Amino acid sequence: MFPKNTWYVACTPDEIADQPLGRKVCNESIVFYRPTPDSVAALEDFCPHRGAPLSLGKVCEGKLVCGYHGLEMGCDGKTVAMPGQRVRGFPAIRSFPVVERYGFIWVWPGDAALADPATIHHLHWHGNPEWAYGGGLFHIACDYRLMVDNLMDLTHETYVHSSSIGQKEIDEVPCKTTVDGDHVVTSRFMENIMAPPFWQMALRGNGLADDVPVDRWQICHFTPPSHVLIEVGVAHAGKGGYDAAPEHKANSIVVDFITPETETSIHYFWGMARQFKPDDQALTDSIRVGQGKIFSEDLEMLEKQQRNLLKYPDRKLLMLNIDAGGVQSRRVIDRLLAAEQSAATA
Amino acid sequence: MFPKNTWYVACTPDEIADQPLGRKVCNESIVFYRPTPDSVAALEDFCPHRGAPLSLGKVCEGKLVCGYHGLEMGCDGKTVAMPGQRVRGFPAIRSFPVVERYGFIWVWPGDAALADPATIHHLHWHGNPEWAYGGGLFHIACDYRLMVDNLMDLTHETYVHSSSIGQKEIDEVPCKTTVDGDHVVTSRFMENIMAPPFWQMALRGNGLADDVPVDRWQICHFTPPSHVLIEVGVAHAGKGGYDAAPEHKANSIVVDFITPETETSIHYFWGMARQFKPDDQALTDSIRVGQGKIFSEDLEMLEKQQRNLLKYPDRKLLMLNIDAGGVQSRRVIDRLLAAEQSAATA
Amino acid sequence: MFPKNTWYVACTPDEIADQPLGRKVCNESIVFYRPTPDSVAALEDFCPHRGAPLSLGKVCEGKLVCGYHGLEMGCDGKTVAMPGQRVRGFPAIRSFPVVERYGFIWVWPGDAALADPATIHHLHWHGNPEWAYGGGLFHIACDYRLMVDNLMDLTHETYVHSSSIGQKEIDEVPCKTTVDGDHVVTSRFMENIMAPPFWQMALRGNGLADDVPVDRWQICHFTPPSHVLIEVGVAHAGKGGYDAAPEHKANSIVVDFITPETETSIHYFWGMARQFKPDDQALTDSIRVGQGKIFSEDLEMLEKQQRNLLKYPDRKLLMLNIDAGGVQSRRVIDRLLAAEQSAATA
Repeated sequence: MFPKNTWYVACTPDEIADQPLGRKVCNESIVFYRPTPDSVAALEDFCPHRGAPLSLGKVCEGKLVCGYHGLEMGCDGKTVAMPGQRVRGFPAIRSFPVVERYGFIWVWPGDAALADPATIHHLHWHGNPEWAYGGGLFHIACDYRLMVDNLMDLTHETYVHSSSIGQKEIDEVPCKTTVDGDHVVTSRFMENIMAPPFWQMALRGNGLADDVPVDRWQICHFTPPSHVLIEVGVAHAGKGGYDAAPEHKANSIVVDFITPETETSIHYFWGMARQFKPDDQALTDSIRVGQGKIFSEDLEMLEKQQRNLLKYPDRKLLMLNIDAGGVQSRRVIDRLLAAEQSAATA
Repeated sequence: MFPKNTWYVACTPDEIADQPLGRKVCNESIVFYRPTPDSVAALEDFCPHRGAPLSLGKVCEGKLVCGYHGLEMGCDGKTVAMPGQRVRGFPAIRSFPVVERYGFIWVWPGDAALADPATIHHLHWHGNPEWAYGGGLFHIACDYRLMVDNLMDLTHETYVHSSSIGQKEIDEVPCKTTVDGDHVVTSRFMENIMAPPFWQMALRGNGLADDVPVDRWQICHFTPPSHVLIEVGVAHAGKGGYDAAPEHKANSIVVDFITPETETSIHYFWGMARQFKPDDQALTDSIRVGQGKIFSEDLEMLEKQQRNLLKYPDRKLLMLNIDAGGVQSRRVIDRLLAAEQSAATA
Repeated sequence: MFPKNTWYVACTPDEIADQPLGRKVCNESIVFYRPTPDSVAALEDFCPHRGAPLSLGKVCEGKLVCGYHGLEMGCDGKTVAMPGQRVRGFPAIRSFPVVERYGFIWVWPGDAALADPATIHHLHWHGNPEWAYGGGLFHIACDYRLMVDNLMDLTHETYVHSSSIGQKEIDEVPCKTTVDGDHVVTSRFMENIMAPPFWQMALRGNGLADDVPVDRWQICHFTPPSHVLIEVGVAHAGKGGYDAAPEHKANSIVVDFITPETETSIHYFWGMARQFKPDDQALTDSIRVGQGKIFSEDLEMLEKQQRNLLKYPDRKLLMLNIDAGGVQSRRVIDRLLAAEQSAATA
């Protein structure tokens, strides 16, 4: 169960730069492509002629040409032409609302009539020269909500990521969860601690000493359908923590867009937007490599957790205070699902 | 659904040269082997002793000796002997009519009483010194009829095989389909065009200029159960086309024997029989390599098409005039299936 | 169907030396670990917090610490602690009786109240300086009873292992099966034959001539639930055979512990305990390598046999006199299953 009347990240621009991309989103097999260099389209990945996947085709003069027999498909799902054929009676295929924005391609897998690009989550750092961004994509065989849980409770860093961003103090400092409408926030502030290896690297990257006490923060923001943006950072202790001046801290936003592929698998777009040394491409690369390595540590855990839950569907899991972020996020999701369902019934 | 009272290509002689071969044909698990150097046998791949696969055994003095406990099986499916055992009461296993002919091993997976080797499709080039043959085998996860469709509509060459045998003119020249009993023919004649790369190679192979206009033809012959033989060739333009004298053309027969493994997978025996430079083994090899590379381009398309069709079993596909060859071939198949079914009921 | 109120080999000590081990036994997902260097514990591999696999955790001060959020689990399945949480109300997970003995870790997957370590099969060679042991582990996709059949009928050596331990005389000499309660014995004695390659190697390993006639024996002992221990050996002919003095023979015990993973897969612990040159580690190694190679020859046969039997569930297999060992062993198993079932009903 996933909300469908909402915007999900479908792919990144580089994935459709040279050829169409076939990707399943919320159980819909979709082909993403660029009719023109500046536009993007999303259609059912199913040629009305013989069911071939259109994603094996090519774009030619704005049309997606089926790679099997040359049917020329328009962005609206209507066949434009086919060699030697009249195509007026051809059945249309479904087209999906799709928008390129903030460095991602966003798709709306539900009712197209409801799609409003204004509701796409605003990524304020995009296009801002004071910020830099780097990220990647993982495919993980788990329910998208297990990943939301994971990200809305960062105590797992102590255990899963013990050699990079984990540290005992995360466990020792309670987190606090608040809910404001569909916005869930779980935050934790740790004072006067030593930075773990990843943050030592970031401090050095920003030209700061890495061997002095710091204040560290984690502020996880869940917003529908399954976005988790996490403000993270460290500041030299006593300089104001989260509010310290830029020259005393290294901070960034962990970006997590979780796109359901099926009920038990996701496309996980992860990344980091940072506000220091934005022009240092080598730093961007080393952060991306480091983050990718850290985030890959979650995969086995999530996939085996999923298998355990499938084996025992009736077991009720605990909901502790550290789980409050995930629990509240799931309530938001449940509300959206119920709304979609009642709208569908009405 | 596939006709079972018919001859399918099961394997090539080299596949059973040194040891038995286990292969599934029309959902029957069969072991093929040579009781003697000049004969071939086909049995259920199931030892009556404990169910071991006989295909892991060895041939010894005409018997197929089970590789597990040494049961000695005769070509008729009756156990001949077993160390230390009386075998008279052993249940027989099924034997299948099997014939070696025209360079292939043919099997009849249906009612043995109806099997008549005279009905095996005659391959006139076999054993004829004016012809040469080379080919290969692919395993593809698709319904055998999708491959029949593929081969009875060569407009796909323009798209799937654009760098080798495809060319725009295939699309531009209409094809014509005729039916004569169980024989379906789809033909296309293109005049005064430039040869695509594969045919340029063939022209050179036959000592002909490759940079002058040619007439090109494709005549696809479907015959039951799922054989598609395609007369293809090019002749220097104005020399008579299909009927040109041998010194003006390069022509051959594309050979396609499609053997269902299961409802959604096939053993695809492909090859080319040519009537020029038959003694040039290097040419045979280079054609085989080229054809294998070209034909492998269909695999991803067919397997993804199959998955699309399984996902939407209720969608009716279009049947355009380019599809007439496949449509008519399926009608022949449907007739055979209905006949088998009514015979089984009676 | 497998007996659950019984001891199975779960793993070897080296598998839990450095970290917990997740392994499925009789369909139960279990984590095995050492709370202390000298003890072993077995729990459901399911963290009561969020269903994470505990086998991805670490042992810390006797507790198994979940690798996701740090829940600390005790050997009894009760949560001991969790950072920042009161754990008294946490649901317990199942713990399994587990014992380290004779060089193996044994688990009781059924009713813990019935588990008596005294019923663990006694391995008399363990800890005896006159004996040496080496072995390994295979995962095989077959019903555990197919492996029991395999080992209780060694005529298959002639066919499956023809180049190592097989020889024609195995087939020619009848075996004899006796049953004593739950103990099934199938034995075969071959006199005045030449030793096959594996036994020639063993004779040389024991400083004996390998090119003279020998007496050879195989005495297969089945005991519940699925242990097969086989006394095997060769003695120079005329020296007393099985009863020959140590200086005239090379003999050992083939060890086979077959642990069901699921209905159609097993963990197969194989090895060899020998009573000659026990201190020769190089010999132990070369025997283990040789045995591993030989035993791997059974895998394809067993897995394909399993697939054949699944395809034809209604076919009754033959039960010849060579199969008597397997047939009688299955009767013992059936008796245990019936007893468990009637106890469960009562």
